[in-house]
Amino acid sequence: MGVDRDFINRILQGERVSVARAISIIENEHSDAIETLRKLYPHTGRAYRVGMTGPPGAGKSTIANKLAKLYREANKQVGIIAVDPTSPFTGGALLGDRIRMTDVELDSGVFIRSMASRGSLGGLSKKAREAADVLDASGCDIILMETVGVGQSELDIVRAADTTVVVLVPESGDSIQAMKAGLMEIADFFVVNKADRAGAEQAVRSIKMVLNFKTQSNGWNPDVLQTIASEGKGIDLVADMIASHRNFLQEKNLLNKKRTERMIERIRELIGEHLRVEFWTADREKMLKSKIQDVLSLHTTPYDLAEQLLNHFKH
Amino acid sequence: MGVDRDFINRILQGERVSVARAISIIENEHSDAIETLRKLYPHTGRAYRVGMTGPPGAGKSTIANKLAKLYREANKQVGIIAVDPTSPFTGGALLGDRIRMTDVELDSGVFIRSMASRGSLGGLSKKAREAADVLDASGCDIILMETVGVGQSELDIVRAADTTVVVLVPESGDSIQAMKAGLMEIADFFVVNKADRAGAEQAVRSIKMVLNFKTQSNGWNPDVLQTIASEGKGIDLVADMIASHRNFLQEKNLLNKKRTERMIERIRELIGEHLRVEFWTADREKMLKSKIQDVLSLHTTPYDLAEQLLNHFKH
Repeated sequence: MGVDRDFINRILQGERVSVARAISIIENEHSDAIETLRKLYPHTGRAYRVGMTGPPGAGKSTIANKLAKLYREANKQVGIIAVDPTSPFTGGALLGDRIRMTDVELDSGVFIRSMASRGSLGGLSKKAREAADVLDASGCDIILMETVGVGQSELDIVRAADTTVVVLVPESGDSIQAMKAGLMEIADFFVVNKADRAGAEQAVRSIKMVLNFKTQSNGWNPDVLQTIASEGKGIDLVADMIASHRNFLQEKNLLNKKRTERMIERIRELIGEHLRVEFWTADREKMLKSKIQDVLSLHTTPYDLAEQLLNHFKH
Repeated sequence: MGVDRDFINRILQGERVSVARAISIIENEHSDAIETLRKLYPHTGRAYRVGMTGPPGAGKSTIANKLAKLYREANKQVGIIAVDPTSPFTGGALLGDRIRMTDVELDSGVFIRSMASRGSLGGLSKKAREAADVLDASGCDIILMETVGVGQSELDIVRAADTTVVVLVPESGDSIQAMKAGLMEIADFFVVNKADRAGAEQAVRSIKMVLNFKTQSNGWNPDVLQTIASEGKGIDLVADMIASHRNFLQEKNLLNKKRTERMIERIRELIGEHLRVEFWTADREKMLKSKIQDVLSLHTTPYDLAEQLLNHFKH
């Protein structure tokens, strides 16, 4: 394979240009991607992964940046991956456009990377998890993965993170009731950011009221914190809560359980992808294209065409 | 196969109990699901499918109900599918809890169905599309598919709909800038609902400003409408805009193109699912479970275990 041992070593030493190049290899689905990940894998498993999700404009990036600064003060290596699940149509990025220049960015102990869809539907969360592996192998102690979203994208974050934080703003109050079924199980804790705005106390109360009736199935009780991230207020509480949740998981041996489930899922995905690539030979692609109008004109059904494709060219 | 011809005929005649049962068969992944869909398929293709998406509480259900009433006055058969992509953890439904009793509900010309995740990650949008096929075959002229979401779930709606409407409220203004990359290409038009609230005009202006710089790649120009759905105001404009977009697609032969792409995607999914089910035999499941700790303890890599699974038990 074409993956140079020197390249791997430079990643393991945390050399920024190589780390960035490795993530680009993954992002662009370069043929070296799997071999790079395979060689890095034995050096992973040390980083703690925190997922942050919530509506656009809630301040997730600001919280991530301030948290990074705090971890830097404790001499930890930090990685931030900002995932933008939107728009495979334009290839446009929510976060890619954003200038993310803060005091942490110039510090060599923090590595920040934005990742957007670029047209490949569904593959983004997988790539983000692989990028986290690169950062893990490069020596990061903590990796913050942030994403915009309600629904599927949040679930993907949960599957990739050890601790998940849902960030809201006071104005999210309206949505809280409606979203409770989903968010309450996704969040290991909540942050109401921009807590100096009107309605903050009430937003906290609304969330707490819903939480009153719920404990996670593992026994953990999600709490609600308040921050004013732009002023750095409450960030220490967020860091403390991440640490508490981590301790909880470790003491109950739940971290290993969580990571095992995650790895099983990942191996299923790797195999699914392999089967898909292997199946869709040029012959089968051609057959699909030549028969698709028969399906649309109702002369055959999608189920029959799928069966034909499965039965033909059996090897 | 166990699918009765009488059952199929009753669905084709629009008999409500049978239609509901067919959708339940799909939702519960009953073994009769594919055979039912296969027999219904030749009777589909007549219904026009409209996707509606937007944040929780924007009023999507209200708009759908009022639209249904309008279509009923024109003697059209209407189907509404409310998709809730949240929380595979609790099995909880956003929409399942909601009481949806309105004047349209008692009319036999409208069929309303809520669908939630119930733990099967990722399969929901597929099931919703299949439920739409059932409604199509049962004689619906128009099918409204509504979902909550930002990100993946919206994309799935786009893939299933002929026309997609993004519903916002005046307070969504903050998010509009942030979401523009994604939403602008997803939406065939926008509705700012609750337009009697403060900030409505400004929300409309914000969206229009962004739209100013964009046309869809097919030449369609998305517009912004205002509604007060609870009072029925503006619903006629929504219906007119759906009709305009439909005409546009038909005149440019884009409807067939859109449906062809959708069908290709669907056949790929059917095959992917078949390959997955075929692959994960009890032997391979056992091997995965027995070796997963070797991966977690870093004695092997996920890529090597996947390869082992692919190479073993080859038939």
